[in-house]
Amino acid sequence: MTEVVKNVEAAVKAAAAREAVTDMFFVACGGSNALLMSGHYAVEREAEKIASFSYSSAEFLARAPKRLGKGSVVILCSHSGNTPETVAAAKYAREAGALTIAFTNLENSPLDQAAEATILYQYNPLAVSEDHAAPMLMRLVFGILAAREGNGKLGKVETALAGMGKTIEAVIARHKPSIAAWAESSKREPVIYTMGSGANWGSAYSFAICILQEMQWVHSAAIHAGEYFHGPFEVTDFDVPFIILKGLGNARKMDERALAFAEKYSKRLLVLDAAEFGLEALAGDAAEYLTPMLFTALLRAYAVALADSRGHPLTVRRYMWRMEY
Amino acid sequence: MTEVVKNVEAAVKAAAAREAVTDMFFVACGGSNALLMSGHYAVEREAEKIASFSYSSAEFLARAPKRLGKGSVVILCSHSGNTPETVAAAKYAREAGALTIAFTNLENSPLDQAAEATILYQYNPLAVSEDHAAPMLMRLVFGILAAREGNGKLGKVETALAGMGKTIEAVIARHKPSIAAWAESSKREPVIYTMGSGANWGSAYSFAICILQEMQWVHSAAIHAGEYFHGPFEVTDFDVPFIILKGLGNARKMDERALAFAEKYSKRLLVLDAAEFGLEALAGDAAEYLTPMLFTALLRAYAVALADSRGHPLTVRRYMWRMEY
Repeated sequence: MTEVVKNVEAAVKAAAAREAVTDMFFVACGGSNALLMSGHYAVEREAEKIASFSYSSAEFLARAPKRLGKGSVVILCSHSGNTPETVAAAKYAREAGALTIAFTNLENSPLDQAAEATILYQYNPLAVSEDHAAPMLMRLVFGILAAREGNGKLGKVETALAGMGKTIEAVIARHKPSIAAWAESSKREPVIYTMGSGANWGSAYSFAICILQEMQWVHSAAIHAGEYFHGPFEVTDFDVPFIILKGLGNARKMDERALAFAEKYSKRLLVLDAAEFGLEALAGDAAEYLTPMLFTALLRAYAVALADSRGHPLTVRRYMWRMEY
Repeated sequence: MTEVVKNVEAAVKAAAAREAVTDMFFVACGGSNALLMSGHYAVEREAEKIASFSYSSAEFLARAPKRLGKGSVVILCSHSGNTPETVAAAKYAREAGALTIAFTNLENSPLDQAAEATILYQYNPLAVSEDHAAPMLMRLVFGILAAREGNGKLGKVETALAGMGKTIEAVIARHKPSIAAWAESSKREPVIYTMGSGANWGSAYSFAICILQEMQWVHSAAIHAGEYFHGPFEVTDFDVPFIILKGLGNARKMDERALAFAEKYSKRLLVLDAAEFGLEALAGDAAEYLTPMLFTALLRAYAVALADSRGHPLTVRRYMWRMEY
């Protein structure tokens, strides 16, 4: 058992030991917020009684939910462990009596110190391994659901997680020609939209805000596939690029409907389909929860190639790391 | 008492008569979804016990929350009363035992027929009056909170709503020069971002997806002010236009922080500030809940002028009303 799995088990044990768990809050900023959305989604789909909420950290603090208290588990994430709003949110939640569980890459960081339990993950955005944050989040969430409500999917999730590393390697290898073609053909696009729904909303959102806007200075928005027909679809045209994520489970129908329309009117679609991941064989009816980590890693491979084609490394920033804000 | 106020009172009575109300769900598509977000926000800020959730209709159906049941109040909205996903959501929720309350402009529409209670509102996007949806939503939400939890803000909200019509007239009149200048200077912009947080997230979202993307075919995204520093701010540059909504209450700090940064690096900001609405005098600590209806109407005045400057009427569509999808 790796150290990080031990961290997760300790956090699950802490949640199991609470007198009651009525609420789970997923609280972080930017890419970490997007990551936690996959945990929020799983709780919303699976929990019988526990209510789940997802917030950007500053919004969580401003909203100051009155339900927050001893019955709450608050899951936070900051890669550096230094995001001030997220550290403040951990302190606020802990003072309110909630169990606070932090994901961070940095031991002894302010977030590590502020939270009651810490899951200290490793990081490689082009891979999925059992010491990464996204798989550990699934283990945590299904562990808590098992302990608090007798949810039975944890075993399937654990078994499937063991196969994710090889799965993503094979998927990225298969996409190599598509990655190269998309990066070259997209390098002069001023706007690229992403689209997704259900479990994959966070993956679509993080690619829009963290990769395209932040790391490439390309205009973008994540469009929810279910909202597409109620406004956003009117921007669709032959030369407007979309990245469309087709998920699994109930939400897939939404993605398919949006795709069927978009492919009639745009010639610039990149379609990534979770059906090709082969997850149903690994995880059965828990498969949909495992798609976001694979989409996020696969999309990163597209991002690396795009950055190369554009001569704009993913590490370049004009504001972040250069000034106080 | 107008007919629509009677509708609201009947809906509040139905909610008061339920054995329990543990959950409120706000379910709609596009602009109606954005509208309902202001109700969701008020419940999240004010409710002691009731859990609140906000979904696009198709996502609600796909997510199929297990908490949905006899303890749920599901508030839906469709202007035409014909949005298939929203009608399906009303039927689904009603079958699950929830109290369904529909906002619609069309009597006897499928949504009116599907829901247990209907609030039949009037519509004028450039005004705010007591038979419009947004004020009636506040009356409904604070009425339910009063009936179920003894929340004391309903009186203040009702008093303040009576003054909204004159308030928005005066605000729009004051903005006339700014509206004309912004519309002319923005008419060739290929991308315009909106930004907001807290109660006004829905207003920022609807301007991005319903006005700019849908009615003007201008690329856009709503950026959450709390998320701005965690990705999106890197697209800021001297020539990148943002519309920034400064709200009231706790969330205002987030908006101010984002604005302070954006105004250093962009020369293309339109800042709309709820502080100038004079709402605190009318509504005291309920003021923040009344800002979205004013922002949405004020933004509509900007949209009308932009459409005129661009020679692209707000009623023009390339897909909607022209084909099945």
